[in-house]
Amino acid sequence: MTRTLVGVVMGSRSDWETMRHCVEQLEAFGVPAEVRVLSAHRTPGELSAWIAAAEERGVEVFIAAAGMAAALPGVVAAQTTLPVLGVPMESKLLGGLDSLLSIVQMPGGIPVGTLAIGKAGAVNAAILATQILARAHPEYRDVVARHRAEQATKILAEPDPRAG
Amino acid sequence: MTRTLVGVVMGSRSDWETMRHCVEQLEAFGVPAEVRVLSAHRTPGELSAWIAAAEERGVEVFIAAAGMAAALPGVVAAQTTLPVLGVPMESKLLGGLDSLLSIVQMPGGIPVGTLAIGKAGAVNAAILATQILARAHPEYRDVVARHRAEQATKILAEPDPRAG
Amino acid sequence: MTRTLVGVVMGSRSDWETMRHCVEQLEAFGVPAEVRVLSAHRTPGELSAWIAAAEERGVEVFIAAAGMAAALPGVVAAQTTLPVLGVPMESKLLGGLDSLLSIVQMPGGIPVGTLAIGKAGAVNAAILATQILARAHPEYRDVVARHRAEQATKILAEPDPRAG
Amino acid sequence: MTRTLVGVVMGSRSDWETMRHCVEQLEAFGVPAEVRVLSAHRTPGELSAWIAAAEERGVEVFIAAAGMAAALPGVVAAQTTLPVLGVPMESKLLGGLDSLLSIVQMPGGIPVGTLAIGKAGAVNAAILATQILARAHPEYRDVVARHRAEQATKILAEPDPRAG
Amino acid sequence: MTRTLVGVVMGSRSDWETMRHCVEQLEAFGVPAEVRVLSAHRTPGELSAWIAAAEERGVEVFIAAAGMAAALPGVVAAQTTLPVLGVPMESKLLGGLDSLLSIVQMPGGIPVGTLAIGKAGAVNAAILATQILARAHPEYRDVVARHRAEQATKILAEPDPRAG
Amino acid sequence: MTRTLVGVVMGSRSDWETMRHCVEQLEAFGVPAEVRVLSAHRTPGELSAWIAAAEERGVEVFIAAAGMAAALPGVVAAQTTLPVLGVPMESKLLGGLDSLLSIVQMPGGIPVGTLAIGKAGAVNAAILATQILARAHPEYRDVVARHRAEQATKILAEPDPRAG
Amino acid sequence: MTRTLVGVVMGSRSDWETMRHCVEQLEAFGVPAEVRVLSAHRTPGELSAWIAAAEERGVEVFIAAAGMAAALPGVVAAQTTLPVLGVPMESKLLGGLDSLLSIVQMPGGIPVGTLAIGKAGAVNAAILATQILARAHPEYRDVVARHRAEQATKILAEPDPRAG
Amino acid sequence: MTRTLVGVVMGSRSDWETMRHCVEQLEAFGVPAEVRVLSAHRTPGELSAWIAAAEERGVEVFIAAAGMAAALPGVVAAQTTLPVLGVPMESKLLGGLDSLLSIVQMPGGIPVGTLAIGKAGAVNAAILATQILARAHPEYRDVVARHRAEQATKILAEPDPRAG
Repeated sequence: MTRTLVGVVMGSRSDWETMRHCVEQLEAFGVPAEVRVLSAHRTPGELSAWIAAAEERGVEVFIAAAGMAAALPGVVAAQTTLPVLGVPMESKLLGGLDSLLSIVQMPGGIPVGTLAIGKAGAVNAAILATQILARAHPEYRDVVARHRAEQATKILAEPDPRAG
Repeated sequence: MTRTLVGVVMGSRSDWETMRHCVEQLEAFGVPAEVRVLSAHRTPGELSAWIAAAEERGVEVFIAAAGMAAALPGVVAAQTTLPVLGVPMESKLLGGLDSLLSIVQMPGGIPVGTLAIGKAGAVNAAILATQILARAHPEYRDVVARHRAEQATKILAEPDPRAG
Repeated sequence: MTRTLVGVVMGSRSDWETMRHCVEQLEAFGVPAEVRVLSAHRTPGELSAWIAAAEERGVEVFIAAAGMAAALPGVVAAQTTLPVLGVPMESKLLGGLDSLLSIVQMPGGIPVGTLAIGKAGAVNAAILATQILARAHPEYRDVVARHRAEQATKILAEPDPRAG
Repeated sequence: MTRTLVGVVMGSRSDWETMRHCVEQLEAFGVPAEVRVLSAHRTPGELSAWIAAAEERGVEVFIAAAGMAAALPGVVAAQTTLPVLGVPMESKLLGGLDSLLSIVQMPGGIPVGTLAIGKAGAVNAAILATQILARAHPEYRDVVARHRAEQATKILAEPDPRAG
Repeated sequence: MTRTLVGVVMGSRSDWETMRHCVEQLEAFGVPAEVRVLSAHRTPGELSAWIAAAEERGVEVFIAAAGMAAALPGVVAAQTTLPVLGVPMESKLLGGLDSLLSIVQMPGGIPVGTLAIGKAGAVNAAILATQILARAHPEYRDVVARHRAEQATKILAEPDPRAG
Repeated sequence: MTRTLVGVVMGSRSDWETMRHCVEQLEAFGVPAEVRVLSAHRTPGELSAWIAAAEERGVEVFIAAAGMAAALPGVVAAQTTLPVLGVPMESKLLGGLDSLLSIVQMPGGIPVGTLAIGKAGAVNAAILATQILARAHPEYRDVVARHRAEQATKILAEPDPRAG
Repeated sequence: MTRTLVGVVMGSRSDWETMRHCVEQLEAFGVPAEVRVLSAHRTPGELSAWIAAAEERGVEVFIAAAGMAAALPGVVAAQTTLPVLGVPMESKLLGGLDSLLSIVQMPGGIPVGTLAIGKAGAVNAAILATQILARAHPEYRDVVARHRAEQATKILAEPDPRAG
Repeated sequence: MTRTLVGVVMGSRSDWETMRHCVEQLEAFGVPAEVRVLSAHRTPGELSAWIAAAEERGVEVFIAAAGMAAALPGVVAAQTTLPVLGVPMESKLLGGLDSLLSIVQMPGGIPVGTLAIGKAGAVNAAILATQILARAHPEYRDVVARHRAEQATKILAEPDPRAG
């Protein structure tokens, strides 16, 4: 049994197109993660079992992605005291405002740290999870700092747009 | 043990100010109901236990009210195959649009029949629940029809606004 | 004359692309349904006649779909005391927020149980209608329960997204 | 029986607080109007009867005001070929955006000329109705032109705000 | 010089794709109309000149279409006491909510009767303009009534969607 | 005749409660300003006359404030090639989103530099106008810089909130 | 010099009314925190200095609160690789939607874990920060778990609403 | 070293597709501009350095474009007392409402003159910048006036849409 540090769960197989960017970022950081498709509404029992088992396998941060009436991140947060991050999926209604509000507007008591809608949020969930892990796992501090520096380098290397 | 036909659950004691209009309408219709304050996020175990017990006590329709990232109606719907009605609570953000979208935008598979935000929705949940009950409990058909007629009478009895 | 249990009405032929998912779900459940294109605004007389006739043919639940200033579900609800479910159609404005608000924000007295915008709502209207029918027609209870189980199985059978 | 030229209808007695500004403007213009509280959903029969009778009494323009899922203006427009103006009432959700979208977003075929939400719309409905009447009743042309001039005079008579 | 009864003005040549549906409906009704592309912001002088000249040519109703910060309908309404109808153009932001609010939310004193966003509103502006004209030009009453009847016929002639 | 550098115009006397903060900021900066209540819709002629006269009196920047379908800033911008700043007034609908979109969403060709809704925008319009003036009137450069420094000092002088 | 684990910063003294709930929750958890009023726009230098110094004093999580065009949380996140949580303040526009979108919609690369608007978000930021700290500081694990249990107890101790 | 009068900065290379319209307009006006891709979050140091250097090279107006949680314009405005104009980029959420609110809703003290979302705003930023420059650089007054006249000519040269 391999240890995993981040548990990534999404409410539907169709969320993978977005969440692959999250998992690829975790892989680029060398953070071991497990990935599941489980629904707060359609497989609540399996979801509970996975949360408990993931904690036992060493997961320290959960990332939950869902769309529309996106209950999944909140339901995960209700069943663990580990930090839970939420990624709202784009939807046709208002471009994902329904997903965003369903995740971020958690009532006092059960927090979900919410990222941007869609791909930007998926990538940022991976980065924030690694920043959190880096408190107790100092080996990830450099990883995050290096990534930050690379972003700057990449922007600065952009040629003058007018030349392009 | 008294039989109850409708199970009303709200996510917070503060929802009662709105949901009392739902329960009063059920009482006016003579529909036996049980009322609980239970949270999808903070008391998930007690919620599950109540849903199961309520079904055993004869509940045939659930009404669930919640605000903000309002997961409660969907979580109830995920744990029963009885009809579930949802009432979005008013909130400061957009007047309750967060509550509404969190309840009505359920993904395919687990329906929540959603009513209007706030008091109008609370009253209408009671009426719709009674309309549903009336299919298998014909004694409620007259109750609903009489209420409909009374509404018309009430409007028609309004004096000319200009006289007022 | 065959008995029908659900009356499905949509405001425009163009709604069929969405509502076919509702009717196919009813057919998969073995629920006899009748389907009409009738407009609250353009064919109000025919709509009234159909509602009355449908009740006589045994309809116990109405499903009404409409877009934009979507008056149809409310107008149906005003002419029957049977349960009425509403399905908002997607629109260009805000992705269907106009349709949603026109259906769900019914004033107190005349309820419409509203489902999600578009295809998810169309499917869920069929499921909720069957859940309602199952109270007086116990033969549908198994149908709904089996469908719920199948949904879970389907999600759990998803291969690991990373393998895909 | 007095002849009336404008028929004003509102969905609820509580709309009068707003619509009194419409009726007072019509009175100031000397336009004979009749005023009713009738609901598209709760008194559809009485509404139809009133529309037909009002046309016989000489009404040439209808003004309909409603809030939330505001079907009234569209339902009036569906039953007459006279011009129909709609006034959305303020509501708690989004300040009346639900009322506005339910009135203005009429599908092609049945127009409702929609005014602003609340008091400004109520006053403007009276002015637009009089502008319409003035085509066939030239005696109202001066009335409208004089009102326009008075508005300008009133603004120009404002003292320097800094003096105030 | 031919007499025209309706003056149609749009803020940009690109609005024609939508407004052609308005003009075609007027032509189908036999209503003589003149059509201009004039901007409230970029050609205010020519706009004023056209409004005055159009009134002299017999125009009795104006239809103004614009998008984004859509000042055109209000600016037309400010320069005439004839009835002015506004058609909001679709835009990328919120699907045209900016256009709609810029047209419909006129302050008290200067009314614009606003129709739906896009094609539906364009068609309905033509119908409402004809309904207004029909008060003083009774020959258009039949035209409108016949159109209403045709709409009903067209919907009722739709084949059963399931057959299609 | 005193020279003025900034022309402040608002669409209604009721906007003064907000716009006094703009004028007080200009006064604090020692920028001579003239203030008018003029409406794009109700006093278009007087508005045009004032714009021309103000330019002759030396005005170099216009600030225009309006609410709802807020055409005033765009109409000013259409009649001058001086920089025009717009301040959206709060409104009941969406807290002023109608005012904001009516001002900021100007089509290409006629710019309005738009500030925040309400008091913050009123103050910032005064600051931005002074920043613009400071290019040709260097005596205002210090004024702006000093104000910037004072803001920082004020925040840093705040006592520890927990002490408060 | 006392060690602090959480750095709380807000953009304006007026945010304290909301953020006191965050700080009180941290105090109830026994988490040492430092609190500052610093603005991303008005005191950028002092903000940078504080972030660096706070890291040296042992801060492991930042909580940043701001309203309107709420740049503060993102600006903090840009200057540290520690986890940053954002709390959107209520505002008049849309009830705080401007604050929420300005914080949560961070582009890929610089994450801000965003909580609900207003008091609920303030409390949840404190809880999430403690959950994050608890990974490297196990003494906080019990604190969080006990708080979770207390919440459930509190809800379950609510008397029957109908008795109240 | 060439003197530049306008500094254009965008948060991401992908904004160039929109902002090229801004730069092309400046070039058409003969206004020397420099263009950079720099991020408020990812390259804050380089951004500060560029702002200072640009001021030394003679820049008198800044134009900053960004999307989503668009902090860039405000961060530029915080580091200069020159006029700063902001251009919100289109985004998937609400068509760019997040970008717009993040730029326009600046708190009192640090103004950003905000233009429309997307291409229209990009062009208008160039025009407004030139209008501002024209106060101290009278040679640009004619340029702006000529452009205004050309716009009118272009609209008036449009053929009758019905002929097209």
